[in-house]
Order: sequence, then structure tokens, then C-alpha cells
Amino acid sequence: MSANQSLSLRDRINDLQAEYIRCIDHDELERWPDFFVPDCHYSVTTAANMQEGLAAGLIWANNQAMLHDRVSALRNANVYERQAYRHIVGQASISATSTAGIPTETPFIVVRIMHDGVTQLFMTGIYQDVFVETEAGLRLKSRIVVLDSSRIDTLLAIPL
Amino acid sequence: MSANQSLSLRDRINDLQAEYIRCIDHDELERWPDFFVPDCHYSVTTAANMQEGLAAGLIWANNQAMLHDRVSALRNANVYERQAYRHIVGQASISATSTAGIPTETPFIVVRIMHDGVTQLFMTGIYQDVFVETEAGLRLKSRIVVLDSSRIDTLLAIPL
Amino acid sequence: MSANQSLSLRDRINDLQAEYIRCIDHDELERWPDFFVPDCHYSVTTAANMQEGLAAGLIWANNQAMLHDRVSALRNANVYERQAYRHIVGQASISATSTAGIPTETPFIVVRIMHDGVTQLFMTGIYQDVFVETEAGLRLKSRIVVLDSSRIDTLLAIPL
Repeated sequence: MSANQSLSLRDRINDLQAEYIRCIDHDELERWPDFFVPDCHYSVTTAANMQEGLAAGLIWANNQAMLHDRVSALRNANVYERQAYRHIVGQASISATSTAGIPTETPFIVVRIMHDGVTQLFMTGIYQDVFVETEAGLRLKSRIVVLDSSRIDTLLAIPL
Repeated sequence: MSANQSLSLRDRINDLQAEYIRCIDHDELERWPDFFVPDCHYSVTTAANMQEGLAAGLIWANNQAMLHDRVSALRNANVYERQAYRHIVGQASISATSTAGIPTETPFIVVRIMHDGVTQLFMTGIYQDVFVETEAGLRLKSRIVVLDSSRIDTLLAIPL
Repeated sequence: MSANQSLSLRDRINDLQAEYIRCIDHDELERWPDFFVPDCHYSVTTAANMQEGLAAGLIWANNQAMLHDRVSALRNANVYERQAYRHIVGQASISATSTAGIPTETPFIVVRIMHDGVTQLFMTGIYQDVFVETEAGLRLKSRIVVLDSSRIDTLLAIPL
């Protein structure tokens, strides 16, 4: 994550999205919380829940420390170690910037590769993000991961 | 769809592609025709048909009014309401611009999410587009959707 | 492949990635070696092999002439003619440029469309690339294709 200020906002957002999924797909989860500001929001929910106005979601964190806790729990549980993931993110739709940050929406696909080599389409959805500028470059103030399907694999353990 | 002229042509094309699929995936089909100029061409065909020089295609519209008609027909038929779609578009290949417009080719993948949550790879192909500049920003003068597979689902009802 | 020097490095890399997959997906394999410099490296391996430090890989070429030979062999064998492929590449992660070139890492998905129209997720992985500047524009000095799955289809014949 470079803090290169000479790139356009769009390029910097694309950069951060590329680095974020690279962090997860390389299983470097310990640096996943670094993409967020300390006072952040992260949640995973479904499109159906969003339509019904249910805010709770499947996964929910209200600050960066909770993200670190989540990674520690995953490392101890080791439930996910026998799969690999491959994310592809599309182009971000960038809304008008306000003092509260830069709202964007970005579609994604996640493919899961099982230990025996079977490759399957795992899940799809959108990232509803709010980015903010920090001294270290762009960071996520908020990421709501909205999954298209409500049929959630109980192995949903890795960050999305 | 902003008319921001300070972005590069490439960024503006990426913007429009992102907004186009967002419109469809959010089921906001009523504004789908707005991505086209009034005197536009839109068709859906297959790679096999293209190779054989068959121009007819599966779906065909020769102006923006026909696109509005298509959306109305879809809303009345309601055949598609029990699925959701997720498009991912790749990078556009942009050809040399002429007075007739800006020809580009962009690959895409569409995933379908059934009402019971089953997620499947639905179709793949390329957008063969010609963009033109208007007072409101870039618009599609022509979009030919070339599907890779000739095994077309009879439910092919949403715009692509 | 234009040598347009007015675009940003990022845009030029995106351009080349788009043209590269377009060349393959349009079955124009004869110009595939042109994306490389004469003194190039190209190999295909798996994530598991990389982790174990096995350099050999599944496919290996040490200069552009070997790439031409590979295409000739494919054309004579015709083993792949009854499938089509659709690549989607994500955003490139671009590392710091050195005199040796521009290292990047780019995720990809390949979908295979069989002659009977069946569409399946074929493989996923990353391109570990080193680009260099030439008089004709950016070219690949090195591409290591790292596949996520070790279950490799014996039909793996087309360039990736």
C-alpha cells in the first residue's frame, strides 16, 4: 500500500482494492486490518437482509481491534487452512466525495480451490465502501460486504 | 453517469461500463436505455453466429425506444424476478477513435444467483461497443453482445 | 499493442494485459509471442509447486523462439480446437520499478466453453510478470503463470 499522491483517486482506489484481495488470497491475514482506520466498521451481510432492512449481518466489527481478534481466532481455529481463494474485483463506481469520505461500490467474485484441486465459484457480491485519506494513504472507514446469495457456506471464515 | 471531462477517456469508459452493469445488477432496468443515444443499435448474438456471418442475433433493437419497450415487456412478464445477476467486466481494449465514435471490446462474465441461493456461472462473452461523446457524457452508439456459448438459456431476458 | 507513451504506466500495463488475453481468446495465437521480448522467460506452474520451491513447472520456455514453436505444435496437434476460452484479469499490483523491469502481479480467471456450449470455470491464478520498456512499447520480460489448483486438465494446451 503506497501513499503515492501523484496517482488519480481512481487509480489509488484500484490499487487498494488490488492489494486488499492480494493480502487475503496470499493468506497474509495479519495485515488485513491495516487496510482500515482504527475507528472502522466492517460487516458481511446478504442482499436479502439489506432489502429487509436487517442491519445485523453475518459478521460484524466496529473497530480495527475486532478485526485483529478475528484473525487471531481464525489462526487458532485453522478451519480454513485446506482451501485457497481467488478474488476478482471489477471496476469501482465512485460517488461524490464528502467530508465523511469517498463512497464507492465494487462488484467481486470469489472462487474457492479445495485441497483436492476442485475449483468452484464460491460467492459473488459487492463491496459498499467508504474510503478516507490518512497520512499513510487511503484507508477503509467502512466496508459492508453484501453477498448476492443467502445460502452461506458455514465455512465462511476468511475475511472478504 | 457523470459527464466529468477531466478524466481520461479510458477512465470514462471504465466508469460507464461500471455504471452499466451496476444498473442491471441492481435491477434498475428503467434507466438502462439512458446509456444509449436515441439512434442506437443493440443486439445479442453468439460467437458461432458471428463466425458464420449471421447478423440477426437473438435480440435486436435499432433505437432507444425499442430498449424502453423491452424493459416494459420484461416488467410485465416478470419472468426474471426470481434470479439475481452479477456482472464482472474486464479491461476494455480501445481502438483508434474515428468520427464515427470510439470502438472498444470488453470481456465479461455473468453469474446468476437463483432464488434458492444457488450460484452458477451463467454466461461469458464480449461487448463490441462504439461510444460517442454527447453533451451528457459518453453514450453507447452501438453495443453488440457476443456470447461465447451457443447454448442459450431460454430465460435470457435481462439486458446484458 | 500501441506504443502510446502519453498514457500512465498503469494504463499501459492494463492495455497490454487486455490485448494479451484478447489475442488468446480470439485464437490469434501466432501473435502471442509478440507480447514478449526475444530473451524472455515463460512458465506455467502451480501454487503448491511454488511453495515447495519446485521451479520446473508444467510448461517452460526460455526465449521467444520456443513460444513460436509451442504455437506451431498446437496448430499441428489441433487438440484444443473444440473449446473456446474467456479470460478475465483483475487489477495489477505494481511493485517498485528497477533497472531489471517492472514487477507486477495480476489475478485471473479462465472460463472454458466446450463445443456443446457447456460453460465451466476452468482455472484461476496469478500472473507474476516483469515488464520492460522497448522501442515498440511495453513487453514481457518474464511471465510465470501460477495456477491455484494442482488438478491440471491434461488438455492444458493453450497459452495462459
